[in-house]
Amino acid sequence: MVVELISVGTEILLGNIVNTNAAYLSEKCAALGLSCYYQDVVGDNEERLAETIRLALSRADIILLSGGLGPTEDDLTKEVAARVMGRNLYLHEESKTAIQNYFEKRGLEITDNNWKQAMVPEGCIVLDNPNGTAPGIIMAENGKHVVLMPGPPGEMIPMFETSVMSYLSKLQSCVIYSKTVKVCGVGESKAETMIKDMIDEQTNPTIATYAKTGEVHLRVTARAEDEKAAKKLVKPVVKELKTRFGDSIYTTEEDITLEKAIVDLLKEYKLTASTVESCTGGMLAARLINVPGVSDVFQAGFVTYSNKSKRKTLGIKKGTLLKYGAVSEETAKAMVKGAAFLTKTDVCVATTGIAGPDGGTEKKPVGLVYIACSVCGHITVKECHFSGNRAKIRENSVSAALELMRKCILQSDAISER
Amino acid sequence: MVVELISVGTEILLGNIVNTNAAYLSEKCAALGLSCYYQDVVGDNEERLAETIRLALSRADIILLSGGLGPTEDDLTKEVAARVMGRNLYLHEESKTAIQNYFEKRGLEITDNNWKQAMVPEGCIVLDNPNGTAPGIIMAENGKHVVLMPGPPGEMIPMFETSVMSYLSKLQSCVIYSKTVKVCGVGESKAETMIKDMIDEQTNPTIATYAKTGEVHLRVTARAEDEKAAKKLVKPVVKELKTRFGDSIYTTEEDITLEKAIVDLLKEYKLTASTVESCTGGMLAARLINVPGVSDVFQAGFVTYSNKSKRKTLGIKKGTLLKYGAVSEETAKAMVKGAAFLTKTDVCVATTGIAGPDGGTEKKPVGLVYIACSVCGHITVKECHFSGNRAKIRENSVSAALELMRKCILQSDAISER
Repeated sequence: MVVELISVGTEILLGNIVNTNAAYLSEKCAALGLSCYYQDVVGDNEERLAETIRLALSRADIILLSGGLGPTEDDLTKEVAARVMGRNLYLHEESKTAIQNYFEKRGLEITDNNWKQAMVPEGCIVLDNPNGTAPGIIMAENGKHVVLMPGPPGEMIPMFETSVMSYLSKLQSCVIYSKTVKVCGVGESKAETMIKDMIDEQTNPTIATYAKTGEVHLRVTARAEDEKAAKKLVKPVVKELKTRFGDSIYTTEEDITLEKAIVDLLKEYKLTASTVESCTGGMLAARLINVPGVSDVFQAGFVTYSNKSKRKTLGIKKGTLLKYGAVSEETAKAMVKGAAFLTKTDVCVATTGIAGPDGGTEKKPVGLVYIACSVCGHITVKECHFSGNRAKIRENSVSAALELMRKCILQSDAISER
Repeated sequence: MVVELISVGTEILLGNIVNTNAAYLSEKCAALGLSCYYQDVVGDNEERLAETIRLALSRADIILLSGGLGPTEDDLTKEVAARVMGRNLYLHEESKTAIQNYFEKRGLEITDNNWKQAMVPEGCIVLDNPNGTAPGIIMAENGKHVVLMPGPPGEMIPMFETSVMSYLSKLQSCVIYSKTVKVCGVGESKAETMIKDMIDEQTNPTIATYAKTGEVHLRVTARAEDEKAAKKLVKPVVKELKTRFGDSIYTTEEDITLEKAIVDLLKEYKLTASTVESCTGGMLAARLINVPGVSDVFQAGFVTYSNKSKRKTLGIKKGTLLKYGAVSEETAKAMVKGAAFLTKTDVCVATTGIAGPDGGTEKKPVGLVYIACSVCGHITVKECHFSGNRAKIRENSVSAALELMRKCILQSDAISER
């Protein structure tokens, strides 16, 4: 079945708020096996809202609307949707009581415009809203289902989870199952070339590629009668991807990030870690520390941005900085040596580079970044050339550092196993 | 003029990513005085994309598309948009060279599918993309303007700011002038209450409020025949806002961020700075270091995530950590003292808190964060209580730390002036 999402609100069209409702509902609908072909955003305008609902009815089976159910004159979604569906509104006594209770419980005075929220279209299903005053509404007719939900995520999400989801899943005849294979250190176009034959052949399951900074995610999605059958379709495709991408795959779990995979590796191998950053200035530590439970393995990080702090904090020799410069293989090595010594950690990663916009020279242009990783004394250095603005260069440096870190940990393990 | 936004990407329809591009572009378009009535999201599907572009052309003057310009077979935006506009594609030599350079600079191999990105529609304007390989494209015909931009925000935003914005502003018959008053340390609803009378009276200029993490931006926008007249309308409103918000305003410049304002303050007062972070784990240093030229004032940062590193690196007494805990006023003080001593910097900021999801207790719940700032020996500590997930708590902590840093620097100046 096909679903279409309509988010109603002038505040979205003005860019005042980010439309997180659409992302939430899309993900839930995908998991329910509904195909979403369009998301629309329209303001609190009678004519344009009616046009959008009519268009959605012409191309989808289920329309999920959020927003515009409030008590103010701006809020038109219910009135317009009822009109498009050819239904009159009537006073829903239970909703009136619920609104009364909501206000009494909070010791608030009810303003007259609140009663508007107790009006509902004839022949609809009314959905409770314990987190607000606007009830949800479902209208069904001729195989079309129109669902109205409030706009605030704190009201919409609980309503979707308690009432709408079960309504939608009952409409479905098939199940969708997907698995994401996450690859690092391989560019998007290279990744796509590596699986072009698989993409060309795809029907069910399908393979979609998503480019992230320093990563490519390959999503394999199958449609079947039940979850077991869908999983069976996905399994051989994931296996084939594993054969092709090998060690570049860091996870096949939806909720595992590259930094989480690294923290898990460190835990598995009982290694402690530290960072020492120049151009990335804390971003690398920040990404690792976003992993809950990182405290088991992460000891300390240094942001040695100035040459002075490279000398004072890490004990890097003045001669090294003078002879090779702060952005050099030698300085990157000295950084990991110094920080690993100070922190007594097994794994230490360093970044030093020119993030720009100034500071570049012909020999050392903006975008030149050295990344060093030491694992129990073995040091690997990688020279990278990034382009883009300062933020982009720094972001790419962090991804490259994480990738090198992962590679070095895996290699050290291979070495110690021999 | 009317603008319509089309975001292209199956990953948005699947809920894999939140459509922040639409929010960004909507905000920018509003500032340019363009009316946005619809935002659409459509997948990488030829027929549906064509239908969406045709519909947008029927109801808007300017169509801003983002996404679907990549090298893979999924990426169809350029091909479909050119077809709808009745144009053929040709190989654009400059874009080909730019792609070649992009890959050579990174030492990456070019795969065949990359050349697809150098094909552009006849008679279009080609926009540089220094942050990626897909050039932007503008097609204009019969008063309609179709703009194609890459999907990744790191490519789209710089392209919009360097090329698209000036193109769009030239299309306008009247001049729109806006000034953004950026406030920190005041919540959105409080800020709105403080200027409710001004918002209620507004016609030209208008005032719009945008809530950012730890900040509120108040945009004053006037429409007039020429820039001079528009500026004249904006001036008294900005003046009134300055009276109402006083020192909470850190800038009225569009391109100045809170961290940039702080770096400028440090330079002005000839102060050096350092950071020492526990729960924010490098994010605070990272934000400061994203300011070009920060090297003049920023010396070093420490990420003392473990208690061990708090002791070893900063020399915090075991007794302090045992008696008060790592998340306490006393530890926050000891952190700035230790780091200021080590780095010999004038200003030092520390964060220590419980970012969750685990580690909270009844006395010290998740979201409790202490922020300390020392300026030339004077230490101020602030206790904060944040809600939300780990990432949100850390982000809020960074904003609060920057705000405290700014306040302490300003106060120290006031003190020294006496």
